[in-house]
Amino acid sequence: LDSGRLGPVRRLVNTLTPAEIGSLLEALPPTKRLMLWGLVDSEDDGEVLVHCNEEVRESLLQDMDDEEIVAAAESLDLDDLADLFEDLPDTVTENVLKSLDRTDRERLEQALSYPEDSAGRLLNPDIITVRPDVTIDVVLRYLRLRGEMPDHTDHFYVVSRRNQYLGRVAVTRVLTSQLDTPINELIDDSQAPIVVTAEAETVAKSFADHDWISAPVVDANNVLLGRITIDDMVDIIRAQADHNVMSMAGLDEEEDLFAPVRRATRKRALWLGINLLTAFLASFVIGRFEIALEQVVALAILMPVVASMGGIAGTQTLTLIVRGMALGQVSASNAMALLSKEMMVGGFNGVIWAIVVGASAGLWFGDLRLALVIAAAIAINLLAAAASGVMIPLLLRRLDIDPALAGGVVLTTVTDCIGFLAFLGLGTAFLL
Amino acid sequence: LDSGRLGPVRRLVNTLTPAEIGSLLEALPPTKRLMLWGLVDSEDDGEVLVHCNEEVRESLLQDMDDEEIVAAAESLDLDDLADLFEDLPDTVTENVLKSLDRTDRERLEQALSYPEDSAGRLLNPDIITVRPDVTIDVVLRYLRLRGEMPDHTDHFYVVSRRNQYLGRVAVTRVLTSQLDTPINELIDDSQAPIVVTAEAETVAKSFADHDWISAPVVDANNVLLGRITIDDMVDIIRAQADHNVMSMAGLDEEEDLFAPVRRATRKRALWLGINLLTAFLASFVIGRFEIALEQVVALAILMPVVASMGGIAGTQTLTLIVRGMALGQVSASNAMALLSKEMMVGGFNGVIWAIVVGASAGLWFGDLRLALVIAAAIAINLLAAAASGVMIPLLLRRLDIDPALAGGVVLTTVTDCIGFLAFLGLGTAFLL
Repeated sequence: LDSGRLGPVRRLVNTLTPAEIGSLLEALPPTKRLMLWGLVDSEDDGEVLVHCNEEVRESLLQDMDDEEIVAAAESLDLDDLADLFEDLPDTVTENVLKSLDRTDRERLEQALSYPEDSAGRLLNPDIITVRPDVTIDVVLRYLRLRGEMPDHTDHFYVVSRRNQYLGRVAVTRVLTSQLDTPINELIDDSQAPIVVTAEAETVAKSFADHDWISAPVVDANNVLLGRITIDDMVDIIRAQADHNVMSMAGLDEEEDLFAPVRRATRKRALWLGINLLTAFLASFVIGRFEIALEQVVALAILMPVVASMGGIAGTQTLTLIVRGMALGQVSASNAMALLSKEMMVGGFNGVIWAIVVGASAGLWFGDLRLALVIAAAIAINLLAAAASGVMIPLLLRRLDIDPALAGGVVLTTVTDCIGFLAFLGLGTAFLL
Repeated sequence: LDSGRLGPVRRLVNTLTPAEIGSLLEALPPTKRLMLWGLVDSEDDGEVLVHCNEEVRESLLQDMDDEEIVAAAESLDLDDLADLFEDLPDTVTENVLKSLDRTDRERLEQALSYPEDSAGRLLNPDIITVRPDVTIDVVLRYLRLRGEMPDHTDHFYVVSRRNQYLGRVAVTRVLTSQLDTPINELIDDSQAPIVVTAEAETVAKSFADHDWISAPVVDANNVLLGRITIDDMVDIIRAQADHNVMSMAGLDEEEDLFAPVRRATRKRALWLGINLLTAFLASFVIGRFEIALEQVVALAILMPVVASMGGIAGTQTLTLIVRGMALGQVSASNAMALLSKEMMVGGFNGVIWAIVVGASAGLWFGDLRLALVIAAAIAINLLAAAASGVMIPLLLRRLDIDPALAGGVVLTTVTDCIGFLAFLGLGTAFLL
């Protein structure tokens, strides 16, 4: 790309899948990103947009004129179009709607009527339905007449006259059964259909737990609306994991590697500001012990050790609990058992590191009382860290605050303050 | 479970899938875990073991006698058995091997000959192969004769006389084509098969990028060995995401929520020890400025603010880069562009927070020179944090160290030391 010879690059790019192109675009700085975007086959434009994160998608859309956007939108499956639709400029959405035939327009409008992150947004209405009273032979003749089937079709859905979901028949069962077998002998109704209002994350968990490839989606009246396939679930599982990693640093999962500097600065500044408040709180605690700090400089030198050990130990517990919550494994019913286990681990590590840190500090400053003071402070802070690591995320969740996002700040505020308080407080009591 | 009325619990548990039971077992404290384990239908034992993390699996295996383990192992598919096999006690493995028929034993031994985390461990040899010269009609009659097909069969694999992979035919194509069509007219050879030695993570990425449901696996001579299905990929994608979250806290992704206290203490202690070394390093830096601290106590009070702002800003950059690396989007070729973008973001935020922190500190202590010193230190540390956040993970990867695991420690060591050095150094120069 650097050399400006675009022909070979174009050929190379268009051998990639839309997901790969999307990932590549995300990895490029803005100018090169737009250069490469210009080289993508226009028939792939829509699919590539679907596979970019929101920030990159926005920057690419700004580079397209309305006609190109409409053309890109037209090429998409309805579930992908629903995903993309709300990011399109208002001037374009109307044209996109006009370009669809009536059925598709109604389907799209229906998809958009479901809340974001619900099963309704993910469902694909392209399915093959059969009646319970026909035979395999009829189904096979119908399929050969039809000539093609939606991608990833692994089941036919059996519906009543009023399109209510009765069950499904595996494609493999159809292939291995005798031609005169009626469909209703092959129906599998063991898997309850997904209700259209279910949350996407819950649906993804069901897919993972049951090893589903696809699942039927029904409305409140059990009318079959379509199906959800596992490839969309993989995207959700990835996004969910990304969310946990990114939000621990106060970033969001749609963060663009090459976001414009101004936007990135603004988004990061918020998090730095929140953390500054907590840092000043810790400084305020330290400020209460001015006299001790003036008289025993070793307290100033060693105080970061106490705070940092508490922060690390607390973060370990916090991470374990937040992960457990994401997996649905931590709840009020096992919170007490977790608290007592973590307190024990914190207690043992408190003793171990109190001895190590106490001995090191004692040798460094040649002061037995200082050694005892820091040892006690470490032990106290590690216990407090274990308790906070369990209780803070549970508390945050009860307050409807994302523990992955806020847990770290709250926790380090607690461990910093308790660490400084314990160390400088004990220092004031015993060293002055 | 608390009430001791086990009958209803048993019935409830056995309506769950093995994955759900595994997750439930992980969420229970040790004694209840073993109680529940006793209630699981013995025919599900194997599947449940496969769905537990390694630590929990080990504790459950300790509770079983050899016969039970052999019975559980027998019920598994070969790919799951290969996954479980190396965790089984040596006394049992031989009996398990004996219980298999000759073909399965050879297949298991072959699976175990591939490195862990390679495609070979994931492949399932149960596939349906066809010859290119037969017609659809023949295939359909063969399938009806066969009577059943492996789960999740979405393709038939076309092989040569010497079992070399030629391509595949979608089950849906077979259903929609005329009966006299020969297979070789339907062959799809656009998707290159996976080589058995490929890394599991690479394979998972291909699945996600291409929306595959299954993919054929071949050996170095293009001989078809089996296929990999997406349900195993979902597990890998989840584990990979887990790995990133957990290793940032020095934990591993197999960590058991209710690990025995002694084991948990030992594992956490290692990480606390590593962090203690870096904390002492920071203390050592502070110790170089004993005189300044003795004379200007405000330096001691404010120094954690400088270090913590650097740590937070650096962690944001680090997280973005580590995530980008995991997605394959950060490499030497865009490192410079990323560095300059992050340095600009760090620069702008440096100016903003230098002003805010300087003004706050100036008002608090009524000292203009102190305000200027802390402002300069904040700006320097935020720039250093941005540079470290980009370069540390790249450097660690070049040294073959996991950036998700070690990045945070190294980064905070750098930002702590630079923060203290800048603040106390400038303080010594201008405030004494």
